[in-house]
Amino acid sequence: MAQSEKGKPILLVALGGNALIQKGQRGTIEEQFDNLHLPMRQIAALAERYRLIITHGNGPQVGNLLLQQEACKNVPPLPLEILVAQTEGQIGYMIESTLDEVLMERGIEFRPLVTLITYVVVDKDDPSFHRPTKPIGPAYSRQEAARLPYPTIETPKGYRRVVASPEPVTIVERREIRQLLEMDFIVIACGGGGIPVIREGRAFSGVDAVIDKDLVSALLAEEVGADLFLSATDVPGVMLGFGEPDQKMLRELTVDEAVGYARNGHFGTGSMKPKVEAAVRFVRHTGKRAVIASVAEIEAGVSGTAGTQFVLEQSDT
Amino acid sequence: MAQSEKGKPILLVALGGNALIQKGQRGTIEEQFDNLHLPMRQIAALAERYRLIITHGNGPQVGNLLLQQEACKNVPPLPLEILVAQTEGQIGYMIESTLDEVLMERGIEFRPLVTLITYVVVDKDDPSFHRPTKPIGPAYSRQEAARLPYPTIETPKGYRRVVASPEPVTIVERREIRQLLEMDFIVIACGGGGIPVIREGRAFSGVDAVIDKDLVSALLAEEVGADLFLSATDVPGVMLGFGEPDQKMLRELTVDEAVGYARNGHFGTGSMKPKVEAAVRFVRHTGKRAVIASVAEIEAGVSGTAGTQFVLEQSDT
Repeated sequence: MAQSEKGKPILLVALGGNALIQKGQRGTIEEQFDNLHLPMRQIAALAERYRLIITHGNGPQVGNLLLQQEACKNVPPLPLEILVAQTEGQIGYMIESTLDEVLMERGIEFRPLVTLITYVVVDKDDPSFHRPTKPIGPAYSRQEAARLPYPTIETPKGYRRVVASPEPVTIVERREIRQLLEMDFIVIACGGGGIPVIREGRAFSGVDAVIDKDLVSALLAEEVGADLFLSATDVPGVMLGFGEPDQKMLRELTVDEAVGYARNGHFGTGSMKPKVEAAVRFVRHTGKRAVIASVAEIEAGVSGTAGTQFVLEQSDT
Repeated sequence: MAQSEKGKPILLVALGGNALIQKGQRGTIEEQFDNLHLPMRQIAALAERYRLIITHGNGPQVGNLLLQQEACKNVPPLPLEILVAQTEGQIGYMIESTLDEVLMERGIEFRPLVTLITYVVVDKDDPSFHRPTKPIGPAYSRQEAARLPYPTIETPKGYRRVVASPEPVTIVERREIRQLLEMDFIVIACGGGGIPVIREGRAFSGVDAVIDKDLVSALLAEEVGADLFLSATDVPGVMLGFGEPDQKMLRELTVDEAVGYARNGHFGTGSMKPKVEAAVRFVRHTGKRAVIASVAEIEAGVSGTAGTQFVLEQSDT
């Protein structure tokens, strides 16, 4: 809060996978750069009124690296945390250079803008290490899966490698990011949920795990004193009865309402559930506002006219 | 120079490939992390007296990504600049987390430390685009090479893909890096020579090229007002008659002497030649000191007791 009182408020935007690859696309680099223009044009406009942090996922990109690694036997395989680091470089560059371009389109010749490699501490005793649940990478037949050197899980697409998805404890670079925001840097960070590390004595060690991108984004927003946390996704907001003829979009949710709906199974087990959980945590811990909106409606979501607004208590309207 | 007068002098250390993978090693991640401790312990010690920038190469790492990409036909191939971005993430994380660890060993619980994805502008009319000379990635037989979708060159190891190695024009993030150094951040940047981009109107576009890591390091040192530029490599310094029984290590070289030796072919066409060229440029353009020293002697090289010292004019000693 000390941060936000010094100048422009701080906004964290977490970009979902569809900001880079849309349904039905193969996911070429050209497609990914093209797709980024829609969110980046809105973020460039918001940059005039907000200090900004951008986070992003990496599911398809890390899946491709896993596929390539398996196909090539004469290169030493890299552990998962190194692949996450690679995607932070790859996607960070794509976001940063696209944002550079749209800032210049707006006549802004220089706004400090950096992509930080970010690692995130997790607890080595996190229960998820004993009960991994996060499917990653390609799908295999049952026979193929049986020959893989790591645990797999059956999913609608087939058998996939499964890894732990531990709770994020703290973002190692949080203090650096705070200092950068004070100087009005736009910061791209925590790509792919951040590189998961455990602290062993005086050292950090990477671990084979994937941290949920929305949960780490909410934590980062909290740790740097953000005023607003927006999660951008491929639907207009949180729905009740999603996919059914009578689906109903929720314009505003108190955290208590959101927790109640989640408990009653309204958000399933897909990607909406952790987004709602992340929004609830941020609002609970800070008393500030969180938003879930579509990638096409980031600006309107920030201004409160689109998406689902998460608040601590019901507004008067 | 304005920078250096404000506080501690600024030192840029460019790490050669042997900081990560030593001769005879396969290059596993464990080996790379182990190897990094030697340079990082020295850099952690220097961090008390210097503001610091670290740059690094990426040859074997980007070569592995190229191999993996070729082995896997069902993933859309990535252009070279994206692979460079991936290695900036990978190696940046390894350097940063190792430096974090050795700083903590010294009882330094917090020193701001960031790895920046960096892109570097090159000239679209650079002559190297018409006459590519930089071999990258794996070696092939003549028959294999003939089937590759890109130009190759014959090297002692076999036929290898050849790409342009254009001159670096400016580092896009130079102003951000300057601001970070003012706040005594340690900055890891320009990995693998930086992601090569050309400016087209208001946008940057990546290009299939590799920028020489030492030349970009010298330029970055100059652009941020560094006081000292050290290139760390696998030999103790610059030699005359390298590899011959009467090889002679040069303790000090004026830029004129260095240019003379280079012109007479004393540094061959291997990796020492661009290192000498980079040192000469930095000293010529700034009047300050440059050093080429072994990875094992970074501290001694900085203090002037090891390596080859490059100066504008001969010292009195």
